Amino acid sequence: MNIERPKSKQPIPENAKKVFKGVIFDVYQWEQEMFDGTKKTFEKLKRPDTVVVFGVLPDGKILLSEQQNPGKEPFIAATGGTVEEGEDILSAAKRELLEESGYEAQEYVLWDAQHPTSKIDWVVYTFVAKGLKKVSETHLDSGEKIKLFTATLDELIEIATGEKSEKFGEKEIVNKLFEAKLNPKKMAELKELFKP
Amino acid sequence: MNIERPKSKQPIPENAKKVFKGVIFDVYQWEQEMFDGTKKTFEKLKRPDTVVVFGVLPDGKILLSEQQNPGKEPFIAATGGTVEEGEDILSAAKRELLEESGYEAQEYVLWDAQHPTSKIDWVVYTFVAKGLKKVSETHLDSGEKIKLFTATLDELIEIATGEKSEKFGEKEIVNKLFEAKLNPKKMAELKELFKP
Repeated sequence: MNIERPKSKQPIPENAKKVFKGVIFDVYQWEQEMFDGTKKTFEKLKRPDTVVVFGVLPDGKILLSEQQNPGKEPFIAATGGTVEEGEDILSAAKRELLEESGYEAQEYVLWDAQHPTSKIDWVVYTFVAKGLKKVSETHLDSGEKIKLFTATLDELIEIATGEKSEKFGEKEIVNKLFEAKLNPKKMAELKELFKP
Repeated sequence: MNIERPKSKQPIPENAKKVFKGVIFDVYQWEQEMFDGTKKTFEKLKRPDTVVVFGVLPDGKILLSEQQNPGKEPFIAATGGTVEEGEDILSAAKRELLEESGYEAQEYVLWDAQHPTSKIDWVVYTFVAKGLKKVSETHLDSGEKIKLFTATLDELIEIATGEKSEKFGEKEIVNKLFEAKLNPKKMAELKELFKP
């Protein structure tokens, strides 16, 4: 699979300087020419990209998780996590699905790739993974508490767009679910995408 | 108006240290206890809150803008900007509406307040401003090019949720517009909110 990284709407220019290196975030600054010819210091962050994987079980149910991280309110999410240094996107998706669920998938479909926010150079890649097979136990790190559960596509849409939507962590694809609710053609495409 | 700041789902703890002070972003780090009792360095950013103002003209049309910032793709937005140090939220909303449009409003309604992303301590407050009166020219800074235009509520919904939605900058309220499209009761509330 050839996965292209989407372009940011406000790219960090090549002459930007890394002024801080953090645990997750690096800070870049540069002198930006303004519309009147004057210059101003602009600032933007960079963080590792993340992958999100919606696994589809052979019976059509979708693998979701109730997650807890230290110091953060519990939330509902797919499996997923951070792309490691030097790791390619698809390998990260496979690793995260395996670590968090113990499943391997036969097929990966890239559903969405976007920069969630313009001031951070950060792409979230969302996959649908099909042909799941349980191959191991889960391997969680000390900052994860994950309880897996399954949902139908209708239930996933309700979780993401209904009354309790603020508990749903995968904000990037919520618009697509709203669009499917409003447009029968998009709903048919979504059903095709999540077909086991 | 008593405007409460929403709580973050992952607050920066009181013992966190500011390890970098940037032009927009400050970086905080702290030792977070993990589920197994070990500790890990956690990191989170803080930036000034922002205000978004949808002005409603006496004829019911909504004030929108095509905006350009240096080094960034053009986008469609309401008026708005950053809350300055020591400034209260409503004053910031009034100042930004005036600077970017030359209008003053008789009434401000707080429509939404949220942290758009859990790793940044940052709230976006969205207002609807009614009873607009033109009192001055616009006062743009050197990093702004703004072309004002007006839209009906239906047109605003189409801009935010339709084919060209990726050009729409006010991502925080898009879900509310989708919900109104799906739910007649919420559409009626939205029409009431935008009544001049």
